[in-house]
Amino acid sequence: MKVCRRVSLNAAHRLYRPDWPEEKNIEVFGKCSNPNFHGHNYTIETWLDGPIDPETGYVIDLKILKEIIYREILDRFDHRNLNLDCKEFEGVIPTAENITVIFWCILREKIDPKYALTVRIWETENNIFEYSGV
Amino acid sequence: MKVCRRVSLNAAHRLYRPDWPEEKNIEVFGKCSNPNFHGHNYTIETWLDGPIDPETGYVIDLKILKEIIYREILDRFDHRNLNLDCKEFEGVIPTAENITVIFWCILREKIDPKYALTVRIWETENNIFEYSGV
Amino acid sequence: MKVCRRVSLNAAHRLYRPDWPEEKNIEVFGKCSNPNFHGHNYTIETWLDGPIDPETGYVIDLKILKEIIYREILDRFDHRNLNLDCKEFEGVIPTAENITVIFWCILREKIDPKYALTVRIWETENNIFEYSGV
Amino acid sequence: MKVCRRVSLNAAHRLYRPDWPEEKNIEVFGKCSNPNFHGHNYTIETWLDGPIDPETGYVIDLKILKEIIYREILDRFDHRNLNLDCKEFEGVIPTAENITVIFWCILREKIDPKYALTVRIWETENNIFEYSGV
Amino acid sequence: MKVCRRVSLNAAHRLYRPDWPEEKNIEVFGKCSNPNFHGHNYTIETWLDGPIDPETGYVIDLKILKEIIYREILDRFDHRNLNLDCKEFEGVIPTAENITVIFWCILREKIDPKYALTVRIWETENNIFEYSGV
Amino acid sequence: MKVCRRVSLNAAHRLYRPDWPEEKNIEVFGKCSNPNFHGHNYTIETWLDGPIDPETGYVIDLKILKEIIYREILDRFDHRNLNLDCKEFEGVIPTAENITVIFWCILREKIDPKYALTVRIWETENNIFEYSGV
Repeated sequence: MKVCRRVSLNAAHRLYRPDWPEEKNIEVFGKCSNPNFHGHNYTIETWLDGPIDPETGYVIDLKILKEIIYREILDRFDHRNLNLDCKEFEGVIPTAENITVIFWCILREKIDPKYALTVRIWETENNIFEYSGV
Repeated sequence: MKVCRRVSLNAAHRLYRPDWPEEKNIEVFGKCSNPNFHGHNYTIETWLDGPIDPETGYVIDLKILKEIIYREILDRFDHRNLNLDCKEFEGVIPTAENITVIFWCILREKIDPKYALTVRIWETENNIFEYSGV
Repeated sequence: MKVCRRVSLNAAHRLYRPDWPEEKNIEVFGKCSNPNFHGHNYTIETWLDGPIDPETGYVIDLKILKEIIYREILDRFDHRNLNLDCKEFEGVIPTAENITVIFWCILREKIDPKYALTVRIWETENNIFEYSGV
Repeated sequence: MKVCRRVSLNAAHRLYRPDWPEEKNIEVFGKCSNPNFHGHNYTIETWLDGPIDPETGYVIDLKILKEIIYREILDRFDHRNLNLDCKEFEGVIPTAENITVIFWCILREKIDPKYALTVRIWETENNIFEYSGV
Repeated sequence: MKVCRRVSLNAAHRLYRPDWPEEKNIEVFGKCSNPNFHGHNYTIETWLDGPIDPETGYVIDLKILKEIIYREILDRFDHRNLNLDCKEFEGVIPTAENITVIFWCILREKIDPKYALTVRIWETENNIFEYSGV
Repeated sequence: MKVCRRVSLNAAHRLYRPDWPEEKNIEVFGKCSNPNFHGHNYTIETWLDGPIDPETGYVIDLKILKEIIYREILDRFDHRNLNLDCKEFEGVIPTAENITVIFWCILREKIDPKYALTVRIWETENNIFEYSGV
């Protein structure tokens, strides 16, 4: 049984490698490399796969899952600049792929290992990303 | 090849165990345990996985799948109180997880075993559930 | 300048007039008159029309508008049975039209008269209702 | 890591087998067999599954994926009649299932084999189709 | 009080003036002039504005409005070719604007004049049209 | 007759008055005042109200409207920092209200005065803004 909680997150970012010259950053990352950043409303789906608890009829109380997502993800990253404000992205290019992996790793530590975990992120309504661990 | 038909269903329910005292029901289920019920617009996706029929180009005629869903699910559960009106939920807490499993079991009996079956339900735009059998 | 805050509300209801015989209730209201209720996810848009405050660039701080909507609407009606739990609907058939008018009246008293007010409600993704006062 | 690009395509089609008499076409395909065609806004999701490039943080630059989809799918099929204008559908009934398989085959040839490929198509908001190869 | 019923319609069309040479049709209408047609999923909102009936709490029973829309619009235009199959479009270029006006005129005759009428049509998720009469 | 073209824009911004101390900025604008910015996917609807051209059946060719929106709005503001990169926001707090007014003013100059103009912006799926001029 899979269950999912969906939340939204608003953040600024810039795709940029400091070890590349400006022209190469622009060649590879285009307008996503704008030096003063741009931003997105990220929609984040957190999917858990596990058995139904026969006592409650829940796989997990989604209020508890929501609290974990708020505390571990939204409180740290919402209304932030991923490049400048978030130590989790130090040395990491904040592509949606890397954001998805980092959020998955953070949640994986906080969610009972009896659940398989998948994180799916919409960067825009046309660009979607999904990670389930190796 | 996977194909899906999406439908909507409006129902009342209450999360509640009669063998628990009222306080424990409220502690575990919170406002979802309101004695006079609350309700949802459930969105139900029925996914079949099977081969394309070379004669018609269909995996299944979705009109036929829609008729099965209307007859087996909507005619029985739409505009009903899942706790009081539906014998399928006798002795079952109508969490979205259990709703998903019960709908899956009902549809599994009516759908040709050559198709793998997945049922996905949105209880709200932020809470999603999916079951594919054991 | 118009600004809007959108929220969701889950409730049970039944369309029913106690002064009509059961058959007439069923004839007029159909399955919406099911005695044990059914329910919906209502989506509620609260629109204010007023000038931009030159000091803040806001028509109204939407956090403040959200707090009013939560306190006056969601805390009273979310996860409730509109017929049985809510004195505001005593003697009122809880059609989406009447829900929209009652929510408009409640919000009208709490929102500064300098703003024109419109309430728009989705009962399902296909049924929409809107009231702006007389 | 899975990544997806979503695009839209508007086309006319008709479900019809020339080797069947008109009545059988209508019996099997119903109003979808209307001789003068009808049409849809198809929404197409192209999902790639592959590793993140450590140099760029991308699985694939979605601008490049978008260019492939525009050149191989939209330039050939958008604002076309699938039955009359598109040689890819000669001898093929343009059901959504067959459309999904044909788009998958076209994209499979153009996308690096290191990526697993899934194509998901919405024919309407209620009818969804998905193909990942055999 | 405004109330709305939303429905979907799938049709083929072509933008084309027979009194213009082919090149001018292509210059003005571009790919929308493809000789073999293309098509859309049109989403149609029918809005009525009128008083709430104190006896029922309805502005209009939306089931009745839905029946009018099905009988007058969907039964005539759904899964049709607007240029070839529909006498209402003889001598009319089936732009979304003209579709909106024609549907408004058809519905205006069938809907009680005590209601103001607005028809809003989505041709794609990005192109929207609305007509309320002169 | 009203017609609308919908587009998306991704930008970074910060709500901040340089003439206020930091604490007052945080008190009034909260997390929206984060010094290193945050961002949004803005959805922009541009509505024109005018007569149908009897020659083409168009109010306006939406391709032309789209080109105006791309040239005047997206080319200037997409993937930018509204506070730092855009002279149009010098001395202006980039609230969604002010963004809506500024986009309206820019488009008003480029769109034929025979059309009434309304700009509607979604900052998130729950916060919506609309301006039609004084």
